[in-house]
Amino acid sequence: MKPNRLDDVPAAGITVTRRDFVQTAAMSTAAFALGDRPTAFRLGDDRDAVIAQITAQHDTTVKMLQDWIALPSIAAENRNYPQGPEYMAKLARDAGFDHVEVVPTAGKSGVFATLDAGAKTWLAIYMMYDVKQYDPAEWSSPPLEARIVDKPGVGKIMVGRGTTNSKGPEMACLAALHAFKAAGVKLPVNLVLVAEGEEEIASPNFRQVVFKPEVEAALRKCIGIIIPLGNQGLDGAVEVDLGAKGALELELVSSGEKWGRGPKLDIHSSFAAQVDSPAWHLVQALNTLVKADGHTPAVDGFFDKVRPLSAQQKKILEEAIPRKNEAQTKKALGVEHWIGDEPWHDSLVRLVSQPTINIEGLVGGYTGPGGKTILPHKALAKIDIRLVPDMTAKETVELVKLHLQKKGFGDIEVNMSGGYDPTETPADSKLVQAMVATYRKSGIDPLVWPRLAGSWPGSTFTGAPLKLPAGIFGLGHGAGAHAPDEYWLVESANPKVAGMDGSARSFVDLFFALG
Amino acid sequence: MKPNRLDDVPAAGITVTRRDFVQTAAMSTAAFALGDRPTAFRLGDDRDAVIAQITAQHDTTVKMLQDWIALPSIAAENRNYPQGPEYMAKLARDAGFDHVEVVPTAGKSGVFATLDAGAKTWLAIYMMYDVKQYDPAEWSSPPLEARIVDKPGVGKIMVGRGTTNSKGPEMACLAALHAFKAAGVKLPVNLVLVAEGEEEIASPNFRQVVFKPEVEAALRKCIGIIIPLGNQGLDGAVEVDLGAKGALELELVSSGEKWGRGPKLDIHSSFAAQVDSPAWHLVQALNTLVKADGHTPAVDGFFDKVRPLSAQQKKILEEAIPRKNEAQTKKALGVEHWIGDEPWHDSLVRLVSQPTINIEGLVGGYTGPGGKTILPHKALAKIDIRLVPDMTAKETVELVKLHLQKKGFGDIEVNMSGGYDPTETPADSKLVQAMVATYRKSGIDPLVWPRLAGSWPGSTFTGAPLKLPAGIFGLGHGAGAHAPDEYWLVESANPKVAGMDGSARSFVDLFFALG
Repeated sequence: MKPNRLDDVPAAGITVTRRDFVQTAAMSTAAFALGDRPTAFRLGDDRDAVIAQITAQHDTTVKMLQDWIALPSIAAENRNYPQGPEYMAKLARDAGFDHVEVVPTAGKSGVFATLDAGAKTWLAIYMMYDVKQYDPAEWSSPPLEARIVDKPGVGKIMVGRGTTNSKGPEMACLAALHAFKAAGVKLPVNLVLVAEGEEEIASPNFRQVVFKPEVEAALRKCIGIIIPLGNQGLDGAVEVDLGAKGALELELVSSGEKWGRGPKLDIHSSFAAQVDSPAWHLVQALNTLVKADGHTPAVDGFFDKVRPLSAQQKKILEEAIPRKNEAQTKKALGVEHWIGDEPWHDSLVRLVSQPTINIEGLVGGYTGPGGKTILPHKALAKIDIRLVPDMTAKETVELVKLHLQKKGFGDIEVNMSGGYDPTETPADSKLVQAMVATYRKSGIDPLVWPRLAGSWPGSTFTGAPLKLPAGIFGLGHGAGAHAPDEYWLVESANPKVAGMDGSARSFVDLFFALG
Repeated sequence: MKPNRLDDVPAAGITVTRRDFVQTAAMSTAAFALGDRPTAFRLGDDRDAVIAQITAQHDTTVKMLQDWIALPSIAAENRNYPQGPEYMAKLARDAGFDHVEVVPTAGKSGVFATLDAGAKTWLAIYMMYDVKQYDPAEWSSPPLEARIVDKPGVGKIMVGRGTTNSKGPEMACLAALHAFKAAGVKLPVNLVLVAEGEEEIASPNFRQVVFKPEVEAALRKCIGIIIPLGNQGLDGAVEVDLGAKGALELELVSSGEKWGRGPKLDIHSSFAAQVDSPAWHLVQALNTLVKADGHTPAVDGFFDKVRPLSAQQKKILEEAIPRKNEAQTKKALGVEHWIGDEPWHDSLVRLVSQPTINIEGLVGGYTGPGGKTILPHKALAKIDIRLVPDMTAKETVELVKLHLQKKGFGDIEVNMSGGYDPTETPADSKLVQAMVATYRKSGIDPLVWPRLAGSWPGSTFTGAPLKLPAGIFGLGHGAGAHAPDEYWLVESANPKVAGMDGSARSFVDLFFALG
């Protein structure tokens, strides 16, 4: 699986259609200055002093991010290990973490750090220090040089691999800590940092970091965990999700070899008269997975564990739905009708509450231009399944396998390439309340949404045994995760959208809100 | 369509499982010398004189072929036109054709030539002067240099683009004509040559050559038309087919745009909860095309025009079936069971008599390694349909379209990329009789087979209005049509398999057999 949460969380501009920026009467226009100018929040001296340091350290922060971008750790290429975790550890130490250790795993090392400020509240922060592979030839600016480029209408952006996914927002969070240090202000929360270097290859060893006894013990003290991210769309809007669907990625492979019918290699298509076809076999197997409507999952037992939305979830959803813009969403998706020609409201209820079985890709036989007269020995479908509580990835794979067996397709390989269980974080948790309060304080009325239809690997934290509230957090904006010309907004042209300093300020405010 | 008959006719080693080389009592061992040594057929002086010239001109013939290989005409790349048709015309003139003309068409020119030897019988010959595209990086020997390379166990082969498809066998045919000239022997038949330069792009303008009034008039005088090809497998065996199935290549395209449902561009797969999927739509449409057995066509009206095998065809088939080797065929195909676990006999009857709908390829959404969480806006299936008399390509496309409409998939595009109608040539035609006699004279008992399950674009000749007997003819061997390291056997290591001179001799003998 590509478990990248940035890739897997629908882009804000598409999924989350928010009301325009909401101005509350109590705020001055200065409150909207999320850009890179000092703000005039009416807060205490401590916060002012910290914010002032963010501004003062702007150039240093940018330089620190550029230095980090220059050192790409890529697990798939075994590149820059152990330099990557060592650098992550150094960044943590420099930001004020008092205990910092590299945590070896069966794969690439993680980093565990704590910062005990003597506060009442502990907060955990998740970071990844690895980045996605890249091809410099596809970039308009060298991916490791992290150049500052002007993007008309957006502002000054830093272009480089890992800028938005996720070193930019992570550096904003670290910059907040530097600012506390420089201002001589005590952090209002204690922090636990858990970082990994294999996020881009599906976090195969991350549980070895999280469940190392002292790490687990530290996490158990926390009120929740945040994942730093630039969550703003270009309109400045922000969503707070109270959980996310799980995801399961499968390859269903039909092959003559495994089937014991059909050919073991591609053969001339004239033999279709004599020889069974693994491609038809796949089509027939796939056809059993959804109902005649073309989308309702038809896998036996698929809905058994689906827990209906609670009264509270329904209430939150009904409050949020009026803020979603149907026309804008349809335009962004290039869609004219929702499934079953349902109205927008019902379609959004479905989006939040229903599990799905989707075909990501079909590959079989000859896939080039024109035709080629072969009977392919193999065909496969790439499937992704979105899970809602209380479905689990593991149980769902087994359901798919059993279903295929019962339908006469037991030979079809079901290869799971990755999967996350769904997550849930209570709306009344201290973390969610603080995130919402922080955004509001910045003049943004976040859309509180019961469940992201996308997925991210948060169940390590939200699931047993930790059951931590978990949330993606942060002002700021970036784009191009996994793509060429990935960028992170450093100086915003739009006062509604935070640049690097505004992003750092959002972490400062979150820490104060939790303190 | 890739209407290439070499690609589309199953390789001899695979489709045609023949009895070992059959020796007739009347023949001396010398008769088996199909290689490149002079033979000792007990024929008249004329034939001996001609054969002697083939041997004498061996080096010249090889050089002529090499020169031709060095000039690849590739219609898809608009390469070497008009040089290609001019060269073809020159080759015809040099071989003794007395009237030679380049025939312009809406695309690339064809060539029409006649050689009136004052004989009673007219024979037509089809040639293509174009070749398939190639990537020199994939070749072990430069594709235009036509180097002679030793292939252990096979002999000295010429490696180059177009060597077997089809310049090698065509040059063997031309070498036969040169030998008649050099020996001062009158040709026993008059010849009509029709050549095209767009075979590899599906012969879009070939009817403009064939049905030019003087060309059609010349063809109408002919007892049939031959397509020169090296028809021998590595065991020396040869098949004479009394027709071929037709073929139809289609792309079935399901797209959000055309459907009016689903997205117009790939979107994040989490939207599968709200948005219809063109990929599922395709799977469901495909599923209606075959029955639950996974192969019997279920398109409405598909079998209406299927003409059962005649008593004569059944008789020929029953005579031939015992010569087919089941174990060898299964091994070559990598197959353990025939459709429906039918016995070999029934499976061969099906191969000859039944039309098929095959999936050549499936392409949709993400097709690379691993997964990618998208809901694709488009998915397509590459389908090939094999036709038997009296089905036609045109009518069958319409049946598929109507069927999809009736089943609720009228939005799915049915794009025909190519198609041929089936062909039939009577077993008792003079051409077939002469081909069989010629092979027998060379010590080979050809397998006479009622209908090739593969396809070739012969219906231009066999269909109305010409209704000419048509047959692929020639001893010799080559492989790798459309692939890297395509070759043509020049000097055979196996006396049962003809090299270049043996191939040329087979044309000499056919001309005598028809004369």
